[in-house]
Amino acid sequence: MATITALETRDVRFPTSRHLDGSDAMNPDPDYSAAYVVLRTDETSDDGEPDGLAGYALAFTIGRGNDVQTVAVEALAHLVVGLDLDEVCADLGAFSRRLTDDSQLRWLGPEKGVMHMAIGAVVNAAWDLAARRAGLPLWRYLSDLTPAQLVACVDWRYLSDALTPAEALALLEEAAPGRAARRAELDRHGYPAYTTTPGWLGYSDEKLARLCREAVADGFGILKLKVGLSLDDDVRRLGVARAAVGPDVRIAVDANQRWDVDDAVRWLTALEPFDLAWIEEPTSPDDILAHARIRASVAVPVSTGEHTQNRTMFKQFLQAGAVDLLQIDAARVGGVNENLAILLLARKFGVPVFPHAGGVGLCEMVQHLAMADFVAISGSMEDRAVEYVDHLHEHFVDPVRVERGRYRPPTAPGMGARMWPASVEEHAFPDGAAWRPEPAAARLVARVPA
Amino acid sequence: MATITALETRDVRFPTSRHLDGSDAMNPDPDYSAAYVVLRTDETSDDGEPDGLAGYALAFTIGRGNDVQTVAVEALAHLVVGLDLDEVCADLGAFSRRLTDDSQLRWLGPEKGVMHMAIGAVVNAAWDLAARRAGLPLWRYLSDLTPAQLVACVDWRYLSDALTPAEALALLEEAAPGRAARRAELDRHGYPAYTTTPGWLGYSDEKLARLCREAVADGFGILKLKVGLSLDDDVRRLGVARAAVGPDVRIAVDANQRWDVDDAVRWLTALEPFDLAWIEEPTSPDDILAHARIRASVAVPVSTGEHTQNRTMFKQFLQAGAVDLLQIDAARVGGVNENLAILLLARKFGVPVFPHAGGVGLCEMVQHLAMADFVAISGSMEDRAVEYVDHLHEHFVDPVRVERGRYRPPTAPGMGARMWPASVEEHAFPDGAAWRPEPAAARLVARVPA
Repeated sequence: MATITALETRDVRFPTSRHLDGSDAMNPDPDYSAAYVVLRTDETSDDGEPDGLAGYALAFTIGRGNDVQTVAVEALAHLVVGLDLDEVCADLGAFSRRLTDDSQLRWLGPEKGVMHMAIGAVVNAAWDLAARRAGLPLWRYLSDLTPAQLVACVDWRYLSDALTPAEALALLEEAAPGRAARRAELDRHGYPAYTTTPGWLGYSDEKLARLCREAVADGFGILKLKVGLSLDDDVRRLGVARAAVGPDVRIAVDANQRWDVDDAVRWLTALEPFDLAWIEEPTSPDDILAHARIRASVAVPVSTGEHTQNRTMFKQFLQAGAVDLLQIDAARVGGVNENLAILLLARKFGVPVFPHAGGVGLCEMVQHLAMADFVAISGSMEDRAVEYVDHLHEHFVDPVRVERGRYRPPTAPGMGARMWPASVEEHAFPDGAAWRPEPAAARLVARVPA
Repeated sequence: MATITALETRDVRFPTSRHLDGSDAMNPDPDYSAAYVVLRTDETSDDGEPDGLAGYALAFTIGRGNDVQTVAVEALAHLVVGLDLDEVCADLGAFSRRLTDDSQLRWLGPEKGVMHMAIGAVVNAAWDLAARRAGLPLWRYLSDLTPAQLVACVDWRYLSDALTPAEALALLEEAAPGRAARRAELDRHGYPAYTTTPGWLGYSDEKLARLCREAVADGFGILKLKVGLSLDDDVRRLGVARAAVGPDVRIAVDANQRWDVDDAVRWLTALEPFDLAWIEEPTSPDDILAHARIRASVAVPVSTGEHTQNRTMFKQFLQAGAVDLLQIDAARVGGVNENLAILLLARKFGVPVFPHAGGVGLCEMVQHLAMADFVAISGSMEDRAVEYVDHLHEHFVDPVRVERGRYRPPTAPGMGARMWPASVEEHAFPDGAAWRPEPAAARLVARVPA
């Protein structure tokens, strides 16, 4: 009998603020960071790993507080260590509920913030483990589950006024016959990506124009720009971007929660001439009613989701007609299970999902959810795309492959968050080489967009 | 020039689960705990404290995870240590925003969960410090601030679609002329309390009946019972309670988030004959729309708030007409400043506030907010009461005084959360005497309801 023998964590941080990559209206100087999680087992690994089979995942933060996030992961060890590996892999729904139902830890959320992201990381590590054990990339592993197995993954509490297990089962069964054809389509064409690489607020107009042109040349059909610090600057930058890419490339904008309702309406009315694909996070991620009001007042499609804390909030955004599209994030909610619930809700309401990614490891993880959604849930890639940002991928053992503006389906087993041991050591905070004083450390910083 | 010299924290836990005090449908075995916070200064204390002037507060948890909460408080030290004491006390609005606006830490919420409760604890400690420095209990200190000063305490972001600073100022100015008379009324009569002491799920029917009768004899006009595990049991227990207290005492019930919408409607329809004062937390604290649906479907008044994460959520509960009354909690949101925002919103919407308390230190802290609300904001004690639970008060230097069912206005300076050093040491986790193996430890456990 194999068991989970340890829950290991590391505080890993990349000094991205030194180059203003990732700067937006709310987050001027992020240091992309990971509370990195390894679930160890005493089972031998098929691919001859000397340390045996393990599951890998991370909670994503942007610097300070990554220590708090790491301690929160450690607080889950008592619920995980010693579990039978067969039982965990056979019922990942029960595993997930075991973590969210610890009544004392639940007080720290419930199901939100640091503690919920910690649960998400451990749940994702268990899915990574199960997929590795099966020798499959997670998207394949997920899309091999039966409709009933997928329904059993979801914690249905608080959802029944919008979606019942029986309705979800019917939706999944409706999608089942097309799974094989859609897998083949994914293998041939990949999944659409969109890029935020050109649009950070810290970049000059010249760099913005150059990166926009490069993105289009690289095959991206959607670009996203950060907005929200200055309306005049945003009008100018959108002019630069639109001139650089022409009328046929879609441009989305992201305000990163900067506005109240009236600000958002004023700003978006001024930006309407640029034919925006969507406005992302116009206001507080908690403010369902404000999103609904903004959506009713402007022509720009409204979206949110990367900070949306759990399925109950996603449900309400859909029920209130507050969004035209949604972002999901692999590392914000309670892991794969809760994202399955959110994808099922989006399917029920007919709202397309454009997963949030970037940061560190988010592209690697979330692509699996988008592809499993295409194969087994929504059945559609139309008017959908996964965010892509071109940095920090070299730290992952199985980095994303984006070609001609499309994600290639991963073929390596697992969920993609496993990092190279040398990258973990170099970026361990505060003692890793990357955190030694400049300028020596600058040489060790990850490759960044020039 | 005096400064804040240190942010000290302690992980303090009380083994309350050994006696089933505090047991409810979602929290079967809480160990009431505090991430205890002390803001040290280099200013001499007027009352001759050898360690000088300090501010005290706590974040409340129910056991496991209190270490995570404590680390989260420590993560704020860089924002606090070294600040000029005059500047902090002169602009506690700026102090509060300094903590919520740390862009990297903000990612861990934003404004919710572990990190936001940590901010709330540090903000409350700063208010405690300011009030001690002024030699006033916090409720007096708050109700001495001018309307403009109170408005400046609030972070108005995300509120303008429901309440503007100008509207808030007008409401506060309307209440200003009656302040002196209301202070005198508080001094004479105190502030109404209600009690949850009889109603925990772990108690027998006999104990329930006895505690109900005792509560009425002690002068309480409202009792609250926990419900939600078994409808049959709840019908029986409410019968016992109603028989014990007669028709004139109000009985509220608390489901601690157990239900989906349909469950809540079914359950509350069955409980309607018991003439309930309110149903508290019928479903997820995140589910504004579900509360609105439940409220539209049952005759029992609907309430929530002790787990409501921030002002943006409270705003929506009010905008959506989802509640008949609200609970605030001293230690869940971002401290005094955010609770002022919530009290102003409740005033604007005409919804009465019944503050949540109990746990450890929550009564001591929240009474100040209720009394400041009466004097300076809502101007009313009618159809309002502060929750009271009779345990763990002996660990506080200035414990609450509840007489004949009413909170006596505190007279000691500060917010009330300062604990006796011996209590902190005894209950420090995991090495304090209270956490040594039973039965020796049982002798050291705090006094509990017999």
